[in-house]
Amino acid sequence: MHKIVFMRHGQSIWNYENRFTGWTDVDLTERGKKEAKAAGRILREAGFEFDLAYTSVLKRAIRTLWIVLDEMDEMWVPVVCDWRLNERHYGALQGLNKAETARKYGEHKVHMLRRSYEVAAEPLLPNDPRTSYNDPAYASLSKERIPLTESLKDTVARVKPLWFESIAPEIRKGKRILIAAHGNSLRALIKELDNISDKDIALLNIPTGQPLVYELDDELKPVRHYYLGDPAQIAEALQEVEAQGSAS
Amino acid sequence: MHKIVFMRHGQSIWNYENRFTGWTDVDLTERGKKEAKAAGRILREAGFEFDLAYTSVLKRAIRTLWIVLDEMDEMWVPVVCDWRLNERHYGALQGLNKAETARKYGEHKVHMLRRSYEVAAEPLLPNDPRTSYNDPAYASLSKERIPLTESLKDTVARVKPLWFESIAPEIRKGKRILIAAHGNSLRALIKELDNISDKDIALLNIPTGQPLVYELDDELKPVRHYYLGDPAQIAEALQEVEAQGSAS
Repeated sequence: MHKIVFMRHGQSIWNYENRFTGWTDVDLTERGKKEAKAAGRILREAGFEFDLAYTSVLKRAIRTLWIVLDEMDEMWVPVVCDWRLNERHYGALQGLNKAETARKYGEHKVHMLRRSYEVAAEPLLPNDPRTSYNDPAYASLSKERIPLTESLKDTVARVKPLWFESIAPEIRKGKRILIAAHGNSLRALIKELDNISDKDIALLNIPTGQPLVYELDDELKPVRHYYLGDPAQIAEALQEVEAQGSAS
Repeated sequence: MHKIVFMRHGQSIWNYENRFTGWTDVDLTERGKKEAKAAGRILREAGFEFDLAYTSVLKRAIRTLWIVLDEMDEMWVPVVCDWRLNERHYGALQGLNKAETARKYGEHKVHMLRRSYEVAAEPLLPNDPRTSYNDPAYASLSKERIPLTESLKDTVARVKPLWFESIAPEIRKGKRILIAAHGNSLRALIKELDNISDKDIALLNIPTGQPLVYELDDELKPVRHYYLGDPAQIAEALQEVEAQGSAS
């Protein structure tokens, strides 16, 4: 039996400011750091140990992972930072306030963006300073692979190969893995694991900062999954995420 | 022309308490963290960027690296934590106060330990709780490879393969590399690069927290090397290291 733990990063500065973030590299707030520290303590107290960790190239996820590993006294665990675990790219919406956007474009359009599988926000223009073209974190990627916007479907399409090429083989080798990532890259992984339909996946909400354990059989099929930690806090975190919508 | 940057971690809790540390996994002091942050700022202001970083599996070096990468806004840089970059193992001396040890065993013996190439401290007994046998950071190593003490020669013998198998090939591929490590693992690397004799290498002192840049030609032979940052501070850091002796 294998176990893998997923964790969605805690509050970032733009979560706090209620702005669409996507690939923008904003940091955690103090609250976000505390959420990560609490998660690390819960994992340690539950006796978890890791051999390998994955995260995105965005600092809100990397810092979450660093804080968790520090709290578990496992700073030496190998960490893979892969852009394919990045949050869904929110195109021209990145940086905009969510409430203002809803007023400007209509609640319905924002709802569609959040809840449909194939709809993407307007793309960034290639000359927009918000593109990731000049960010050294993506220097090894060809320009065509750097998105200007993404639907959830696009996000799933880039996350899945990482699962099959890297994460799943490492689990099969017996590695105990922690993945610290984002709402939509985690959805993509869970869609694959639990075989969730295109229609239903956008309805899946993952609370921030709560370690989510998946137990997998030898074929890596999920046997069961559960959140660690206090159920009341998990319910609260989930309610907050649902109120915010999934567009982060 | 290639560049590689070496950095010795800043003050640890046992540096501060003047104790032999070796493989004991003590953390940085607040001063040590400040030293790392200052080094990151110096590197950023000098326009350095990295593609890859190496460190040991000891948290005083890992934290130094994390703080530097954070300060440079390059948290996504791939990090290799390799036990072969650990500090020299100080055997049964680990945890003892350096001044007390000098009084107990004589200045001459402690001096020999620090200044000779082949002398090692008394080994830890295999059942000593200070051994690394049960530390998960070394779980992938066979028991015979986990030292109970080391001379500087032993340290060089384990560091060199890492250079030839991993670091040098990555430099040849054009990777810009940062290595955050310890006084004696850095000595081992510099011994190899500068072809320093067994007799002279123990006399080489590397100041803490100061980025040391090596410029290498296409055969990876050093063209020149220099410390970044304020010369007065570098001189002060060096003086402090010399006063402490190299046994860290």
